Amino acid sequence: MDAEQLRECGHKMVDFISDYYKSIDTFPVLSQVQPGYLHKLLPDSAPTHPDSLEHLFDDIQAKILPGVTHWQSPNYFAYYPSNSSVAGFMGEMLSAGLNIVGFSWITSPAATELEMVVLDWLGKMLKLPEDFLSAGQGGGVIQGTASEAVLVVLLAARDKFLRKAGKNALEKLVVYASDQTHSALQKACQIGGIHPENCRLLRTDSSTNYALSPDVLNDAILSDIANGLIPFFLCATVGTTSSTAVDPLSALGKIAKTYGIWFHVDAAYAGSACICPEFRHHIDGVEEADSFNMNAHKWLLTNFDCSALWIKDRNALIQSLSTHPEFLKNKASETNLVVDYKDWQIPLGRRFRSLKLWMVLRLYGVENLQCYIRNHINLAKHFEELVAKDSRFEVVTPRIFSLVCFCLLPACKDEAFANKLNHDLLNAVNSTGKAFISHTVLSGKYILRFAVGAPLTEERHVNAAWTVLQEKASALLGTTL
Amino acid sequence: MDAEQLRECGHKMVDFISDYYKSIDTFPVLSQVQPGYLHKLLPDSAPTHPDSLEHLFDDIQAKILPGVTHWQSPNYFAYYPSNSSVAGFMGEMLSAGLNIVGFSWITSPAATELEMVVLDWLGKMLKLPEDFLSAGQGGGVIQGTASEAVLVVLLAARDKFLRKAGKNALEKLVVYASDQTHSALQKACQIGGIHPENCRLLRTDSSTNYALSPDVLNDAILSDIANGLIPFFLCATVGTTSSTAVDPLSALGKIAKTYGIWFHVDAAYAGSACICPEFRHHIDGVEEADSFNMNAHKWLLTNFDCSALWIKDRNALIQSLSTHPEFLKNKASETNLVVDYKDWQIPLGRRFRSLKLWMVLRLYGVENLQCYIRNHINLAKHFEELVAKDSRFEVVTPRIFSLVCFCLLPACKDEAFANKLNHDLLNAVNSTGKAFISHTVLSGKYILRFAVGAPLTEERHVNAAWTVLQEKASALLGTTL
Repeated sequence: MDAEQLRECGHKMVDFISDYYKSIDTFPVLSQVQPGYLHKLLPDSAPTHPDSLEHLFDDIQAKILPGVTHWQSPNYFAYYPSNSSVAGFMGEMLSAGLNIVGFSWITSPAATELEMVVLDWLGKMLKLPEDFLSAGQGGGVIQGTASEAVLVVLLAARDKFLRKAGKNALEKLVVYASDQTHSALQKACQIGGIHPENCRLLRTDSSTNYALSPDVLNDAILSDIANGLIPFFLCATVGTTSSTAVDPLSALGKIAKTYGIWFHVDAAYAGSACICPEFRHHIDGVEEADSFNMNAHKWLLTNFDCSALWIKDRNALIQSLSTHPEFLKNKASETNLVVDYKDWQIPLGRRFRSLKLWMVLRLYGVENLQCYIRNHINLAKHFEELVAKDSRFEVVTPRIFSLVCFCLLPACKDEAFANKLNHDLLNAVNSTGKAFISHTVLSGKYILRFAVGAPLTEERHVNAAWTVLQEKASALLGTTL
Repeated sequence: MDAEQLRECGHKMVDFISDYYKSIDTFPVLSQVQPGYLHKLLPDSAPTHPDSLEHLFDDIQAKILPGVTHWQSPNYFAYYPSNSSVAGFMGEMLSAGLNIVGFSWITSPAATELEMVVLDWLGKMLKLPEDFLSAGQGGGVIQGTASEAVLVVLLAARDKFLRKAGKNALEKLVVYASDQTHSALQKACQIGGIHPENCRLLRTDSSTNYALSPDVLNDAILSDIANGLIPFFLCATVGTTSSTAVDPLSALGKIAKTYGIWFHVDAAYAGSACICPEFRHHIDGVEEADSFNMNAHKWLLTNFDCSALWIKDRNALIQSLSTHPEFLKNKASETNLVVDYKDWQIPLGRRFRSLKLWMVLRLYGVENLQCYIRNHINLAKHFEELVAKDSRFEVVTPRIFSLVCFCLLPACKDEAFANKLNHDLLNAVNSTGKAFISHTVLSGKYILRFAVGAPLTEERHVNAAWTVLQEKASALLGTTL
């Protein structure tokens, strides 16, 4: 690690990445390589002697980039976005440059304290209740992903209940969520040893736009209690992965309170929109929650990974996740005046991730971030209007944020045929490399998802993607009907 | 995300970081700030309007850097190192620049395939058995930390046993390791619901240099079986955190095989040394292991985080950790021709971490990396000799790699006094900001740890740290004796 070599190489890499962004829309969005392509291009073992930087850049260009699916492309509309930005990128650079491991306060006080400060900032932008801020018994923490966020709060809730009911009561613990809830919840249950048959993924349908019905939840809880089981965890979603369904937090939260159940709110994607006053109502009821999560790395210009989790009772987390090996003991931790984030998460080590979120909030400011969100939502509205104008297509669920769920030939009575048609349309579009969209299934129906949210996307990219969709639909209908 | 703005800002950040490295030894290694310092320096809420880049850099300099503990300082000798390098830094830059989320092969084939290739490379550098390479039923994966590595294999082993014994057998499962094993194992047990009283942290002492005795293990297993319990997981360590103890893998592995126990080897720190032929024997017996882990981010010039895990039976991992939500289904995954690393880890999303490891191996080459390790080990030997020459000190356990465990006044009969003296010496040294060391406790004795491994450390830094230690020891002995 020589400072001047770092300077020389770093500048070259900055230019390489800037050039990449200049030409990003010339790449096929979805990588078109075949499985195993890279194995054939690289040697079988590491080189004995150093290779030159020039060869490395050549290889990145010739061998790596063809295998990249370009999440930052303006033509990326799949899954949910994963935002990069100049500020977020600079934050990643500084974090990698300092390369500290901030497991305890003492290992870099700035890493812990900046995280507390910026999660308070973001919490206030979202108008979270004060209990979630660091001044009281709660606080925020950056997790890698929403999967880790739901896992750590599930473990905190599990252990809280087992402390009362005894550790052999594990088999009686029951989790509730809608069938639209992210698979991360099911995985968290697997990891935490919750019995699969006690994982209630309650059925939703179009009558509630795929939101969880409070009545259905209440019935399920009553039935479980009657069977001697212990309801302990409810996960509600604001902006489900399939269709951005919004579970009714207030009503669900009241039920959770009645039965003393831990109430977690997953707003991984849609949480970012709630920094705008006009969308904040979607998380009304968050006051009832024990924990709340949103991913700044999805739609808030903060490079992956940065999943913000707030909790009202930080001690519940700490009781589940803390360890106190001698070799990590230190004066600051023993005085209890500091936060040691190692006890709020699965891993011990942690990167200085608050830097990037801090830089995003500082360099863009709240107003610009709100405009950024509104612009995407307007682009999604625009796409929705395009779909509505073509009678071969239909928008399937009401658009709430920046995702449009739609399909071709909605009235087709042969559901298998329609599903295959939409599946073929998806593959046809993605194979062009001109746009990348993804899919889901709702009530048995194969649905196309068009998620606006890449930082570089403009109206012309939305229009171009729609043109590709129309062309491919015409081709498919022409040959198959 | 404007390419030219990225270029301009990126270049400024490269210069900032390069300048930081130029002056890194002028900072106190251990941050000297008080708890809560940053809260007082920053506003209570995020700015409404953007702030300038200049203000941001001023704040980093004036508010953030004083709160940083400088892991990259040449005077850093605490815990274990966390290496940064030019190649590793460039890899982080490119990963942040592309900002892909590589959960499934299709979301960036290069991310998955490069990871498979470089973990095969590193596996071959370590002469791991072929079963651990990707051509067979096994393979490597990059986890964030060794904590996550031991957790995922513990879960794989747990579920493998529960599939046979029934899920209510959880309370009977027993884990074995020495009392020197990293606390990550205990945390993994907490997470996975292993009952705390079934976590056998078997006693070690100086007679085996704190390595786990095969006889002690065997007795414990026999006793548990006699009591109707189910031994299922053994974690051996090569290079324990306290004192680099090396558990005897061959003998332990044979016992694990006899009883059909999952055998995990944690070489988080010392694994890097095993790329040198003369140190490879420390992992002899790894052939018997089911899984093996080392952290390239500790001592192999790859920026944090990059924890390499190899497993012989990848299906065991996948059976425990996979989910198949509709919205992630795709042709490539369904053909079973590709690896989807989401099913090998806790989170869903994952960064393109193989880039940095690939760049480190490419730009330095195996021979240079071996020299790098040897240099640190020689510096540790040099420190050991310095300690041995001062009769007030003693080297406590044999130095094996680049960690020296030592203490002041070893012959002092008043153990409480000696412990306090060493504790005070640690604080006195760390308060100078001239060096940062850490401690442990072995057999009740407070021990100082001097770990060489920061990339910039040279003999003069080791000498300077030793001078500070001697001066502070003299001052303490002068005033307290």
